[in-house]
Amino acid sequence: MAVGNDQLPELLPVPGLRLSTVSAGIKTPGRKDLVLMELTAGSHCVGVFTQNAFCAAPVTVAKAHLQASASQPGYLLTNTGNANAGTGESGIADARDCCAFVATAVDVNASQVLPFSTGVIGEPLPVDKIKAAVPAAVTNLTEDGWAAAAEGILTTDTRPKGLSVSFNCEGRDYVVTGIAKGAGMIRPNMATMLGYIATDAAVAPGLLQQLLADATKISFNRVSVDGDTSTNDACVLVATGKAGNALESDASSPLALALRDAVQEVCVVLAQALVRDGEGASKFVTVAVESGASEEECLDVAFTIAHSPLVKTALFASDPNWGRLLAAIGRAGVPDLDVDRVGLYLNGVLIAENGCRAASYTEEQGVTAMAEEEIVIRVSLNRGDAAASVWTSDFSYDYVRINAEYRT
Amino acid sequence: MAVGNDQLPELLPVPGLRLSTVSAGIKTPGRKDLVLMELTAGSHCVGVFTQNAFCAAPVTVAKAHLQASASQPGYLLTNTGNANAGTGESGIADARDCCAFVATAVDVNASQVLPFSTGVIGEPLPVDKIKAAVPAAVTNLTEDGWAAAAEGILTTDTRPKGLSVSFNCEGRDYVVTGIAKGAGMIRPNMATMLGYIATDAAVAPGLLQQLLADATKISFNRVSVDGDTSTNDACVLVATGKAGNALESDASSPLALALRDAVQEVCVVLAQALVRDGEGASKFVTVAVESGASEEECLDVAFTIAHSPLVKTALFASDPNWGRLLAAIGRAGVPDLDVDRVGLYLNGVLIAENGCRAASYTEEQGVTAMAEEEIVIRVSLNRGDAAASVWTSDFSYDYVRINAEYRT
Repeated sequence: MAVGNDQLPELLPVPGLRLSTVSAGIKTPGRKDLVLMELTAGSHCVGVFTQNAFCAAPVTVAKAHLQASASQPGYLLTNTGNANAGTGESGIADARDCCAFVATAVDVNASQVLPFSTGVIGEPLPVDKIKAAVPAAVTNLTEDGWAAAAEGILTTDTRPKGLSVSFNCEGRDYVVTGIAKGAGMIRPNMATMLGYIATDAAVAPGLLQQLLADATKISFNRVSVDGDTSTNDACVLVATGKAGNALESDASSPLALALRDAVQEVCVVLAQALVRDGEGASKFVTVAVESGASEEECLDVAFTIAHSPLVKTALFASDPNWGRLLAAIGRAGVPDLDVDRVGLYLNGVLIAENGCRAASYTEEQGVTAMAEEEIVIRVSLNRGDAAASVWTSDFSYDYVRINAEYRT
Repeated sequence: MAVGNDQLPELLPVPGLRLSTVSAGIKTPGRKDLVLMELTAGSHCVGVFTQNAFCAAPVTVAKAHLQASASQPGYLLTNTGNANAGTGESGIADARDCCAFVATAVDVNASQVLPFSTGVIGEPLPVDKIKAAVPAAVTNLTEDGWAAAAEGILTTDTRPKGLSVSFNCEGRDYVVTGIAKGAGMIRPNMATMLGYIATDAAVAPGLLQQLLADATKISFNRVSVDGDTSTNDACVLVATGKAGNALESDASSPLALALRDAVQEVCVVLAQALVRDGEGASKFVTVAVESGASEEECLDVAFTIAHSPLVKTALFASDPNWGRLLAAIGRAGVPDLDVDRVGLYLNGVLIAENGCRAASYTEEQGVTAMAEEEIVIRVSLNRGDAAASVWTSDFSYDYVRINAEYRT
């Protein structure tokens, strides 16, 4: 199951970035499971990574290589089918080995290659299979490779996810293209499972990092499928500089502001696409909490609702069981919450106020609202000016089936 | 589904406490859904209640009446089929109305009657149906009514839960009997959904409150079915004084120590019984975290594992997917966790150490361990002397079915 349109929009090339997607046979023979991206000389690249203490070997190596290359890596190597996580020192050695092999093939330093892995945790990375597929990956690099790469990075996802935004700033044209993957173990903390966003603008690393951090904060860090933070979350933003502008480092410049909007739009659409393709998802749910005393308490309420198995199974059943919503709000840990001031809306219908069912509410209204594929749960705390939204999916038989059968 | 023995053990009468269980037809015609308990004059009663900000009307009224009666209520009135939660001011009035009606029938003050409700949230309490059944409830009071009451308080539970412990202290015989209900919306915070424990010892309210608080801390507050804290959690401990001892108020006396052990045993068995009967449960899982720097961080790790949908679906599938356990440990928020020191065991089998799979571990060992109905997940953080255990169940198709169909 998945929610909404499953067509990948046209993905525009980003001059200076070439991609190839080939088969290494890591988990499924014949599956195109290896993606190589080449960043033209002079490109800058920044990343945000999982906050999970058990971060995977490729995350550790990618962070080290980003630093060693002064944010100027030349290649990004991604495999699916194996996460190279929970693999200890030998996992680190395997990730480094793959980077060194690519580096030799294309004549750069090993630290200019960043590794990314996604798939089963705890199995040794099949290094030989990956090495055997590298020559074909190098040969097939093309600027038109985004759509194939969007397919190549998937695991339990049912559809590719990507978006391009183009804009003009001070007479010059720019493009931002991004792809992402992820459907389960999704409650990113600083990044999604895997996300790659690139622009042809020339942007200094400091500004680039700020643009990525600001965008992930309100996109990938606001979605949850199951509350489980992955060991492999990684999201990178590349600036190739091929648009021809002078290197931009001023966060308040017209280009920085235009780029901020474009990167945020790409990240929000990709983050929502993760949820629409959430494992077993039949609903796309926005939880919007407003009138809170702080953004933090709004997020606490929103994520408590988004993670509640009782709320998620009621959403699956299209059951307007608003008592479960009140119960989730009540256990979210908001200090001194006055429940009599809380208002609750489902797709615009006032459900509860003053701590109980609204006088105007009828069960028919709730049933009609919950029958929609896209649901907005709006909570008004009526105690301040802060607000925050998160996006989530429901909890279905298919979620259990997918995760009970994943390794078999 | 449910895990383990489903036979209710023999429940011993507690002299001074009479019970009756009758049908009020609140949700299902003919179902015995109303339980009245009578505490003999001179009994003391204390309670612990939900920490959910949306606490139900009966919780609010029970707390007020406990205080007003100086911990000497005469009657406890429990209905199932309707939680009287999310019902605002009229819910409070309804709960008070029922108490006053019982009080008139038995000639006590209304504040000597404590109300308890469990069932659907957000529906008005059918006060007239309850009142109509009160006369029969008063007529049928008996000291042998524990087993019927254990049935009468159930909702989605598939089996009654109870235990009696008797002991001798300084030549005098005592008994502790308890019953509880709850299978979903279970992550108690200060009490289970509903629990009633009674002893014939004479115990002063201060000591009685301490005995209950100490017991719930390591029993009902250590279980989770789905992480959802109920609006109606309530657990009471009654001391009738009919054993004939002098009123005990010294926490270090032989009787207090013997009573502490007996109350804890009853509470732990009842708490584990909630999990064994967890909605859709096919596994009973103990998550034991040891060698932590603090009890708090051990509990954080244990509950993060216990609440992870990915861990719970793997348990349902009997899949030794230990990568999900490492991922859960890694996102539990333990400060400066050194993952290379973490050890992980499944039913005694060493699965992972040094941040990766143990050299001695084979998939066959994991499959054998996970095939058991009772699973112990043991995590060693190897950074201190603290430890904590919690109990939980797995996440099955039946959990989704039960909670998707609950109101239909």
